Amino acid sequence: MKKEIFKHEIRIIKDTFSRLLRRNAETNLIKLIKKTHPADLAIVFRYFNEDEQLQVFNLMPKSDETVEFLIELDDTLVASLLNLEKPEKIVNLIQDASANDQSYLLGILKENQSQSVIDLLKIEEKEEIEEIMGYPEDSAGTMMTTDVFTLYQDTTCGDAIKALQDQKDAEMVFYLYITNEDDNLVGVASLRALATTPSDKILNEIMVKRVHTVRPETDQEDVAQIVAQYNYLAVPVVDSDNFLLGIVTVDDVVDVIREEATEDFLQMAGAGKDREILLKSSWENAKARLPWLFASWIGGIIAASIIGRFEYMLESFIALAAFIPVIIGMGGNIGTQSSTIIVRGMATGRIELGNEFKILFKEIRVGLILGSLYGLLLGLFANFKFIDTDPLLGVVVGLSICCSMLLATAVGSFTPLILRKLDIDPAIATGPFVTTSIDILGVLLYFFIAGSLLNI
Amino acid sequence: MKKEIFKHEIRIIKDTFSRLLRRNAETNLIKLIKKTHPADLAIVFRYFNEDEQLQVFNLMPKSDETVEFLIELDDTLVASLLNLEKPEKIVNLIQDASANDQSYLLGILKENQSQSVIDLLKIEEKEEIEEIMGYPEDSAGTMMTTDVFTLYQDTTCGDAIKALQDQKDAEMVFYLYITNEDDNLVGVASLRALATTPSDKILNEIMVKRVHTVRPETDQEDVAQIVAQYNYLAVPVVDSDNFLLGIVTVDDVVDVIREEATEDFLQMAGAGKDREILLKSSWENAKARLPWLFASWIGGIIAASIIGRFEYMLESFIALAAFIPVIIGMGGNIGTQSSTIIVRGMATGRIELGNEFKILFKEIRVGLILGSLYGLLLGLFANFKFIDTDPLLGVVVGLSICCSMLLATAVGSFTPLILRKLDIDPAIATGPFVTTSIDILGVLLYFFIAGSLLNI
Repeated sequence: MKKEIFKHEIRIIKDTFSRLLRRNAETNLIKLIKKTHPADLAIVFRYFNEDEQLQVFNLMPKSDETVEFLIELDDTLVASLLNLEKPEKIVNLIQDASANDQSYLLGILKENQSQSVIDLLKIEEKEEIEEIMGYPEDSAGTMMTTDVFTLYQDTTCGDAIKALQDQKDAEMVFYLYITNEDDNLVGVASLRALATTPSDKILNEIMVKRVHTVRPETDQEDVAQIVAQYNYLAVPVVDSDNFLLGIVTVDDVVDVIREEATEDFLQMAGAGKDREILLKSSWENAKARLPWLFASWIGGIIAASIIGRFEYMLESFIALAAFIPVIIGMGGNIGTQSSTIIVRGMATGRIELGNEFKILFKEIRVGLILGSLYGLLLGLFANFKFIDTDPLLGVVVGLSICCSMLLATAVGSFTPLILRKLDIDPAIATGPFVTTSIDILGVLLYFFIAGSLLNI
Repeated sequence: MKKEIFKHEIRIIKDTFSRLLRRNAETNLIKLIKKTHPADLAIVFRYFNEDEQLQVFNLMPKSDETVEFLIELDDTLVASLLNLEKPEKIVNLIQDASANDQSYLLGILKENQSQSVIDLLKIEEKEEIEEIMGYPEDSAGTMMTTDVFTLYQDTTCGDAIKALQDQKDAEMVFYLYITNEDDNLVGVASLRALATTPSDKILNEIMVKRVHTVRPETDQEDVAQIVAQYNYLAVPVVDSDNFLLGIVTVDDVVDVIREEATEDFLQMAGAGKDREILLKSSWENAKARLPWLFASWIGGIIAASIIGRFEYMLESFIALAAFIPVIIGMGGNIGTQSSTIIVRGMATGRIELGNEFKILFKEIRVGLILGSLYGLLLGLFANFKFIDTDPLLGVVVGLSICCSMLLATAVGSFTPLILRKLDIDPAIATGPFVTTSIDILGVLLYFFIAGSLLNI
């Protein structure tokens, strides 16, 4: 995990800002803001305190760079910067931005503030923003840029090149999107194909006709999957009439892939899904983590009640208590391994198309192999350590850990598979759920086996 | 997690292949292979059995598409397809591929087979491959493509456009890389800047002079960070003399980001780091997961020994045993939350630059808040449930769970931070390590508190 070059640059920028802020050197701060890449500025902002953030932000000019900075900045920080501002100032700041950037930023603001800003915008902008904000969250519609460069299919390559040189709107042109007279998307051509074709050929002859498209309501993960799978730089978004609405570009896909991975990580540990959790207060942080700990607490008191019920066994066989942690611990760990492998396999598209049972059985086989191994090891240890007790103790303990691990692989892999069938995100708290179930099932199994073999 | 469109297409392709394979319809299979995108073919291959894989592969022609298919295919499957082939056939297959693709595929083969293939290649190819294979694993050097389009800085924009139209080698041209007379990289210009500038201007006047570059030995995560941060489509790789060696393109970065996230997921759960674990046999799978379960087993027998030592407490106070699972379970779960937040924060660059202590203290505060809450809840439950025992039991249990959760947040966040300081990947088995430590520490704490308060 060496990120040395990058880290070094950011550190220099941060230290320079700190020095200038301490000296309150406004003119130099303005120069430094101008010189710093908006994306870098968004990172160093995380390390400023609130006063410093406000001071730097107030020195930022109304410019494309400032909008880009806000887009790159963590939502939490955008909210704390803009929530205090007057709607007029926000309108002034974002009025030249694209409808996408506008609606992204408005989405972060509080409802009433964002409405006051929208009310101040021009009618046509308002309509466009409301359309974008009407798409489902995390969909292609909210990600796409609507500035797309399109040409009719009977344009000659020569005219296409001229048109391309003249246009200034579309930020990044990767492909030429080609439409018919009804404005339907009929093909796509690469700039390279265009440049290396005689200028009298028409686009229809050089374009690729089978184009992968998505709908505005397509989930961003689906879009990311397509871009990643075919190494695309952009994917077109069309409506049900194949009318081109916009494109989603690869730079946004890169962000989606990182964000989705972070959300899956947090959700699996039952720590919410807010990828900015590090910026939140301890209280908000605790609130996000509370629900799944509550589930785990319920599991814990169930386990305690079960053990309470078998107290008579412990009374006549106190050594049994010593092995409770290792039996549920080993189960919990192997179960977490299983669920991690399955959840990640589903996120990366490796588990699809009905190979679920094969994978479930494979996991159970792994549970059997490792359960037998560690059961044997623990059985030997138990007999050696608690040499003065019933020699069957080793068998009980060994068999219990084997069964607990076997069961854990089954629970650990079955849980995410069944969650997906129910259309629930399998990453949601699979970790705590699996360990808690193993706590309960492991304890039950253990006392059942002990009761059967030890004749207590 | 809706991946419906994509899933649907892949399913159709898979079903068609299955039908044709059953009917042994070679001519139709050849047609289908030709029609299927190499990346899609790589995915459906996962669902074929070994015979089917071999049968389809043998029908594939010697072509760029076949090489692309192999590049997209899982390493495990590439190895099983190629390891049986004669070196001559492999040479024939890959001889027209880029040096990068060649060395990537050779890197998957067994040592002696890859050497026999290299021996059959032309001298200049051999040298290039050996150079690429000499770079560290997962570095910019192994990722970069060496086919880069460069121009001298005193070229006019008009000439540049002509040169661009003539060149056919460089696969994807995103930017023009501009060099001086000593072949050093001095600037970069976008195609857009080129197209919209009068044709008599020279490149030196329009190029951006401050270029983010990486070295061939730069880690792929570092490269990915730069591309993601600045929304680049490519980043140039230069040597210490600023000589341009190649470029890393965004499509490879997309793969790196997904792969690194998968590796982090698996490592955190102590399930190795092989992202193709789902394709491996149960034995190989068990082998990858064995080491950290062994650590967890050692932790378990330490916990058992500790409990064995305090048997006298349990004998006079058997209800104590009932709360062992919930105390270590709640600790384990909150500790895993902490370590997940920290490990992911480090992977996405949110924890850097000396804000570690602030974050550590915040985690400990969260542990205190949630520990107090669940301690109180559990204490009340213990007193209510075990109403006939010492009323201090509730205090002991409540205090223990509070301390265990507090300690768990500290261990969970401190462990990855210290691992990084020691230059060890913090994702490595943080999960099992944290839960195992909590097993031991939680049990110790519990008996210490019980011993102090209950006067046993």
